[in-house]
Amino acid sequence: MTRQKMPGISKQCGYAHAEVTREKCYSKIILKIATLGRCFAEKKMADVIDSEVFQAFTTYATLVVLKMLLMAPLTAYFRITRKAFVNLEDSSAHGKTPEDQKKLLRLDPEVERVRRCHQNDLENIIPFVILGLLYTLTGPDLSTALLHFRAFAGSRFCYTVAYLCTLPQPSRGLSWIVGMVTTFSMIYRILSTVLLL
Amino acid sequence: MTRQKMPGISKQCGYAHAEVTREKCYSKIILKIATLGRCFAEKKMADVIDSEVFQAFTTYATLVVLKMLLMAPLTAYFRITRKAFVNLEDSSAHGKTPEDQKKLLRLDPEVERVRRCHQNDLENIIPFVILGLLYTLTGPDLSTALLHFRAFAGSRFCYTVAYLCTLPQPSRGLSWIVGMVTTFSMIYRILSTVLLL
Amino acid sequence: MTRQKMPGISKQCGYAHAEVTREKCYSKIILKIATLGRCFAEKKMADVIDSEVFQAFTTYATLVVLKMLLMAPLTAYFRITRKAFVNLEDSSAHGKTPEDQKKLLRLDPEVERVRRCHQNDLENIIPFVILGLLYTLTGPDLSTALLHFRAFAGSRFCYTVAYLCTLPQPSRGLSWIVGMVTTFSMIYRILSTVLLL
Repeated sequence: MTRQKMPGISKQCGYAHAEVTREKCYSKIILKIATLGRCFAEKKMADVIDSEVFQAFTTYATLVVLKMLLMAPLTAYFRITRKAFVNLEDSSAHGKTPEDQKKLLRLDPEVERVRRCHQNDLENIIPFVILGLLYTLTGPDLSTALLHFRAFAGSRFCYTVAYLCTLPQPSRGLSWIVGMVTTFSMIYRILSTVLLL
Repeated sequence: MTRQKMPGISKQCGYAHAEVTREKCYSKIILKIATLGRCFAEKKMADVIDSEVFQAFTTYATLVVLKMLLMAPLTAYFRITRKAFVNLEDSSAHGKTPEDQKKLLRLDPEVERVRRCHQNDLENIIPFVILGLLYTLTGPDLSTALLHFRAFAGSRFCYTVAYLCTLPQPSRGLSWIVGMVTTFSMIYRILSTVLLL
Repeated sequence: MTRQKMPGISKQCGYAHAEVTREKCYSKIILKIATLGRCFAEKKMADVIDSEVFQAFTTYATLVVLKMLLMAPLTAYFRITRKAFVNLEDSSAHGKTPEDQKKLLRLDPEVERVRRCHQNDLENIIPFVILGLLYTLTGPDLSTALLHFRAFAGSRFCYTVAYLCTLPQPSRGLSWIVGMVTTFSMIYRILSTVLLL
């Protein structure tokens, strides 16, 4: 091989003196490219957002939040059919005289039942979504993550059915516990992966 | 052109045998660099976080959450001015004798109105923020996203004014429906983009 | 140096005509690599997810949400020990005759106290987590971020102790105010960094 002095290019490669062969210099370029390649292959938290686990999280989080949102129209439906309102401006369309309208400001057991179910959703589904996002960013296996998401979504749908249809007790309690266990399992995974106090 | 055997460099380029010209080998390097460049140009979900849509989401999410947070001091203000408390330790500073203090543990219609508005914020604004984040990550157009965010923020401010000032009914109901429609539109976009069950 | 015509490779480098030396062409490759390197060094919002600040956020967000979730079993515990239920299907296991069961559908001051504390958690901890995530993505210093997260987490634990143990008033109010100030400080940082209306 021919040896050549390359003062310009050797400086860019970071060699202090020009006494290098062309080949040695180009090898270094290739090594740099290889390093860049490895950089891409490296698993980064930000890449998790593009992963299938994140897509699964997005799907299930949207479904359970949608379920929670539907409790509001359901409450409105029960309020109107049972004629049980809480604001005078709401009942004004459903009673003729002011006394009639005041009578409609009452508590209805069915309405209260839907509202308690809605409140329980707020207390459980929102922590699930927050923790589910952080759990997804720890980069779990797709199968493990799907197991968590499906168990939680299933438990919440069972809970809602059990609450609204007044099923006998172990049913509502058990479905609530399944949701809690799933959430606590995600908390365990998050804190055992990332703990910076 | 001169042909040269390059055993070292040709291996790094991935050629099995050394019978390649220098030029062929370097062409491959350049192609690799081009691939890296394309990698950067590729639209990735994680890049969405740096986008203008994400900045718009951040702004509107912060504003509506700020609006929700301000309901708490407002409740406190009404509790103190109307002298309607819920805990004995809160009313102890506002009554002299223990009987006076017990009388202050009462429900006030204005306080309950603010609290219901706060509860409705919890039920609507938090789902909006969660779904808005997932919606932003699906990479919508800036104009479409801004339309959603502005419609929702506007609807919540109207809702609050309608509730606290006791405006006649279609106003509060309509502003609530605008917020719900916006949220459902975002759910539609999320589930039609990403659906992994 | 030897001058050589390189029609193939010079085109890939983007030179219109082949009248370039090999060295000039390879210098351009190295410059491209350097540009890629700078691309990596550039601070992007998406990289913040991999930062220590994000790890700190994940830890504290998980801890405060865990604290909030634990209020639900605590409510259940008080409901069972104080025998104060809200659904007939819940009290059916604790009373023999239907009249006994109906008597158990009552409000208990201790249960209501735990529930109000849970509600206050919902109203404060969830906004903190949402705003904390957006705050983290603005890329604050680790020490400043830790100060915010620790102050908020501390204030919520004090609030819970003050509420459940019925400590005299300034304690609960002050811990609530510390949490609010922390949250407002994060809102200020978010809106002063990112504001796209």
